[in-house]
Amino acid sequence: MIVPDRILAGDRLALARLLTQIENEQPEGFETLSALFPHTGQAHLVGITGPPGTGKSTLVNRLVLTLRSRTQKLVAVVAVDPSSPFTGGAILGDRIRMRDLTGDPGIFIRSMASRGALGGLARTTSAVVDALDAAGFGWILIETVGAGQAEVEIARTAHTTLVVEAPGLGDDVQAIKAGILEAADLLVVNKADLPGADNTVRVLQASLELASGARRPTDPHSQPEPTEEGWAPPVLRTVALLGEGIDEVVDAILHHCAHLETTGRRVGRDRQRLRAELLALLGDGLLARFLSAHSEEDLGLALEQVFARQVSPCQAVERLLARNR
Amino acid sequence: MIVPDRILAGDRLALARLLTQIENEQPEGFETLSALFPHTGQAHLVGITGPPGTGKSTLVNRLVLTLRSRTQKLVAVVAVDPSSPFTGGAILGDRIRMRDLTGDPGIFIRSMASRGALGGLARTTSAVVDALDAAGFGWILIETVGAGQAEVEIARTAHTTLVVEAPGLGDDVQAIKAGILEAADLLVVNKADLPGADNTVRVLQASLELASGARRPTDPHSQPEPTEEGWAPPVLRTVALLGEGIDEVVDAILHHCAHLETTGRRVGRDRQRLRAELLALLGDGLLARFLSAHSEEDLGLALEQVFARQVSPCQAVERLLARNR
Repeated sequence: MIVPDRILAGDRLALARLLTQIENEQPEGFETLSALFPHTGQAHLVGITGPPGTGKSTLVNRLVLTLRSRTQKLVAVVAVDPSSPFTGGAILGDRIRMRDLTGDPGIFIRSMASRGALGGLARTTSAVVDALDAAGFGWILIETVGAGQAEVEIARTAHTTLVVEAPGLGDDVQAIKAGILEAADLLVVNKADLPGADNTVRVLQASLELASGARRPTDPHSQPEPTEEGWAPPVLRTVALLGEGIDEVVDAILHHCAHLETTGRRVGRDRQRLRAELLALLGDGLLARFLSAHSEEDLGLALEQVFARQVSPCQAVERLLARNR
Repeated sequence: MIVPDRILAGDRLALARLLTQIENEQPEGFETLSALFPHTGQAHLVGITGPPGTGKSTLVNRLVLTLRSRTQKLVAVVAVDPSSPFTGGAILGDRIRMRDLTGDPGIFIRSMASRGALGGLARTTSAVVDALDAAGFGWILIETVGAGQAEVEIARTAHTTLVVEAPGLGDDVQAIKAGILEAADLLVVNKADLPGADNTVRVLQASLELASGARRPTDPHSQPEPTEEGWAPPVLRTVALLGEGIDEVVDAILHHCAHLETTGRRVGRDRQRLRAELLALLGDGLLARFLSAHSEEDLGLALEQVFARQVSPCQAVERLLARNR
């Protein structure tokens, strides 16, 4: 087991090993994490999501450097995007390149491998964030790829959620629809030097107005209505490759951060995140206990009946639960 | 409760209402489904995934029409992609347009709204597929947006998984990395008339070779090694907008379908899907039972201790479980 004090003292090697234990769901990792948990709650979590091809990773890279130099706090990146050059799945070895980019020991980058089990990624991401929080990182940027349900969920549980778009990705602003827009605290149109950027900004603003329930006709020059939290998500433009517009995004993050503090919404988001984490762990724990308390035969029999289409999965579960009152 | 015989008799209105009940997780929907379950197991499930901007929905549209006319079987589409014009979240009302496109009563399109709970989407999608299966649809196409973990999982549980790419989506073939490629039975490069299509095909073939563990140097003209299932995923080209290459994709789907039958892998995929469904339902059932058996206070107290950072979520769950042996 990794000694918690080493993590608190800023030992990066110990931290990296702890994160690996958490990712592999090793019990000793969670033991260390439990000992560290009282030291969490200080970090500001920024979720960054959006479809592939928006230059999200370049933007994240710029934000990391700007947040680091402007606030002097330690900055960590958790990349959950399987298409991100930060992550291990990359074919071209960009992972190493990205890590080399940051010679600053105050910056820590961690890529998360996608796990087989549904919900597993959200759970381990949450635990990894807790570990980084305890290790003293004041900013934790969680990069996920948009449009996926699990990824939107992960981004949504952050304190500040930033949705990235770019001009010319298919028909209008494809991936911005439905639940994704509702999750956004900030919208960023990256690659804003490309043709069509004005249109993308306009579509986003119109969508925000629709989402905020404004009944009046769409006016591209109007600001979106404030949401029920009293925060109107701004639409910002960046050219991350050239470093343009980054300071304005950092300004907006800091502004949102202050807004959450003054309105008390920060506590609400923390509670929401921890409640979801607790319920997910409880569900897992109950299932694990059930499976270990029952013979393989019980479950195997239920499965065979389902395979043979004799009972439906719902009925099989009802019977399993009834036998174990 | 909707009478199961109406579904079996092909009543589309009853089917639509049943699917709504399932999506809303109403108990009577699952009662009807349990009665229908013995009639499932006939459909061939085709998962179709890929990043936004690849023209995936246009491809699905063409595949539906071609499968319908070539096999004479009933065809259903379940669209889980929040950015798909099939889904309800569309801003431009394409949903209605798409539905009007298909005047054939042998084609049924259903869009799934994204649900809040992690894993909820996978579960309801599975139930919707069962209902369509019982209703006599021989082909069920499940369209999800790629790169998201939940969506890849959903596509992976299909009998045949088709991954769609397009030239020029960001840096090379972004979203094709990691777990997504492994899930593919067929790869389709759509918009193959665009510049860069040859390169996209080459990158995909090279990635397949890497994934299949071939040690020899990359040769763009070589075929990928067969996977352990004895199936080498082909890389096909389409221009869905013009209907080009669609017949070849349908040929490949039929070929894969026959391959699964002759090798007995179809049964294996079915078992995998139903097992996952059963375990997910069991976990939900156990959690629901636990929450109803315990007072709000018990859980509330645990939550307060976690909020106060006195105990970690893991410790809180351990204590809750220990009290309820």
